[in-house]
Amino acid sequence: MTRPRPLVPRGDAADTVKVVGEFGVIGRVLAKAGSARVTDVGPGDDAAVLRTPDGRVVATTDVLVEGRHFRRDWSSPEDIGHKAAAANLADVAAMGGVATALLVGLACPPSTQTAWLEGVAAGLAAECAPLGAAVVGGDLVASAADSASVVLSVTALGDLGGRAPVLRSGARPGDVVALAGRLGWAACGLAVLRRGFSSPIAVVSAHRRPSPPYAAGPGAAEAGATAMCDVSDGLLADLGHVAADSRVVVDLDRTALVRSCLEPVGPLHQVASALGVDPLSWVLTGGEDHALVATFPKRVPLPVGWTPVGEVRSGGKNPGVLVSGEPAADVVRAIGAERSGHVHFG
Amino acid sequence: MTRPRPLVPRGDAADTVKVVGEFGVIGRVLAKAGSARVTDVGPGDDAAVLRTPDGRVVATTDVLVEGRHFRRDWSSPEDIGHKAAAANLADVAAMGGVATALLVGLACPPSTQTAWLEGVAAGLAAECAPLGAAVVGGDLVASAADSASVVLSVTALGDLGGRAPVLRSGARPGDVVALAGRLGWAACGLAVLRRGFSSPIAVVSAHRRPSPPYAAGPGAAEAGATAMCDVSDGLLADLGHVAADSRVVVDLDRTALVRSCLEPVGPLHQVASALGVDPLSWVLTGGEDHALVATFPKRVPLPVGWTPVGEVRSGGKNPGVLVSGEPAADVVRAIGAERSGHVHFG
Repeated sequence: MTRPRPLVPRGDAADTVKVVGEFGVIGRVLAKAGSARVTDVGPGDDAAVLRTPDGRVVATTDVLVEGRHFRRDWSSPEDIGHKAAAANLADVAAMGGVATALLVGLACPPSTQTAWLEGVAAGLAAECAPLGAAVVGGDLVASAADSASVVLSVTALGDLGGRAPVLRSGARPGDVVALAGRLGWAACGLAVLRRGFSSPIAVVSAHRRPSPPYAAGPGAAEAGATAMCDVSDGLLADLGHVAADSRVVVDLDRTALVRSCLEPVGPLHQVASALGVDPLSWVLTGGEDHALVATFPKRVPLPVGWTPVGEVRSGGKNPGVLVSGEPAADVVRAIGAERSGHVHFG
Repeated sequence: MTRPRPLVPRGDAADTVKVVGEFGVIGRVLAKAGSARVTDVGPGDDAAVLRTPDGRVVATTDVLVEGRHFRRDWSSPEDIGHKAAAANLADVAAMGGVATALLVGLACPPSTQTAWLEGVAAGLAAECAPLGAAVVGGDLVASAADSASVVLSVTALGDLGGRAPVLRSGARPGDVVALAGRLGWAACGLAVLRRGFSSPIAVVSAHRRPSPPYAAGPGAAEAGATAMCDVSDGLLADLGHVAADSRVVVDLDRTALVRSCLEPVGPLHQVASALGVDPLSWVLTGGEDHALVATFPKRVPLPVGWTPVGEVRSGGKNPGVLVSGEPAADVVRAIGAERSGHVHFG
């Protein structure tokens, strides 16, 4: 846990963590942190203390490693803060919760500029602020001696507001599959950056700062969603977990998916055409937009922000994901995507 | 957050993360995780859901970096799990709380043996179990491409059981300073390991697996402690934060400290004599034993496990730490310790 000293004056760009020291950096970083609505004890003691109005707390952790989840030459420190927060805040939303606080563990080389860390802190704070959340604690340490890379581990806490958590295991045959948020934009932006380009800016920005539909999570829980998850590894991969955990078949409607994610014609088509790929491959297998996907009983009117994209069928002994009746793996192969989702140790 | 697949059979020692894959490893690791008393939704969904009987949650994060906080050739994976858990569980105790759950972010090279990760998980679980806590979530990712080192980020959550949190800022002139737990043992063990030895085993074990006095934290809160923190950076450094935040002078009684920490004669003296150092330097500046230090009003009988080691005086414009009236820095210089505590980016 952090032990900040009184804030030191903001330094110039040449200041590094080694020069300013742990407590100096933490002081500067906390000046960017904002404050969480539920804070009883904020940063600076052995631990934070937060109110949990619901009597339960939602908790999730995601680790971002430089070079694997972000690049300092592709993303500003503010972008990286936004992205690290979004990945975690979306997980809380996917349970039907509203995020209340973040804790941030950060390992960086001693040569890291404090201005860069202040940028990350500003990005974390800005992504949290609309939800009433903030960074309430953390730890700042030197990276391993063999590494010049930053590792950022973020834990988000959240409140369910009296709602039952929406699990991956609750989908039932007959349910409607629905989507909230964008799919394929971050993957398309990554494809652009990998080829050395930085436009169209809309998709590059989507890669740098995802815009998860946070409010759609609690909205879905309120409306009676039976299962929900965020799309972090790719729609087919993440729905695969829902199908397996619920022992059902999830059949996506290709036409509905195209209508929802690829109409009207926009930057995804522009890039896809330039690269000679099918933009549907990004929609089906691209992660990191942190869209939410959920299943709802057929009789339930879909809440604001949700679009139907498929249906749930009984799974028998072969739970899994289909696209208009075809096995997901065949569809992926046919449209030329290399794999059905992010492989973490590939 | 983790998305475990059904457990796979335990593999042989040659299995690596790259071979078994993220979900396979998580399945094996979770088989070691035990279960937390407060769990509503455990690992395997977007987030965990935990009950918070107190209506508040205590939350803290510590990051351990291979080569800086542990070495794989000095500590078994079980030791590393114990140590990572202890650092966080002690922070919760230092607020007066009882830890309920851990979330673990782990970055490791793809070549890491799954058996090693299972060992870490077993150590984390074993350290948590006596408190009724367990690992309820986390994330497993590949280390940065430039690094063969493991980074372990642990977040602990805890419950205050109706007690007010005990902050660093509440010490008042006239209070008694008291200590619970061991000091100097982990630092002595580290000195032994650094010189290539592995005995006396008592101090080496203390470095590998600290034994924080978890129950003493809630006990102190119950008894009316005015300030408390855990000793992770060294007694003088950590009491320095209490002094600064409370605007007081903390005067340690050297005789009481020696009686409490260095009598009867034991392994600290044995090693100190072999190395030609004053064992008091480890007591004053050694971190990582995670002892608790607290201040109590004079009229309060000290609860079980606490020993008086000093008193609080009014700080005026010069809050700080003394040892029997002498400035801490002078004492440290006189006994030959290099610095007054752990420097994170030194």
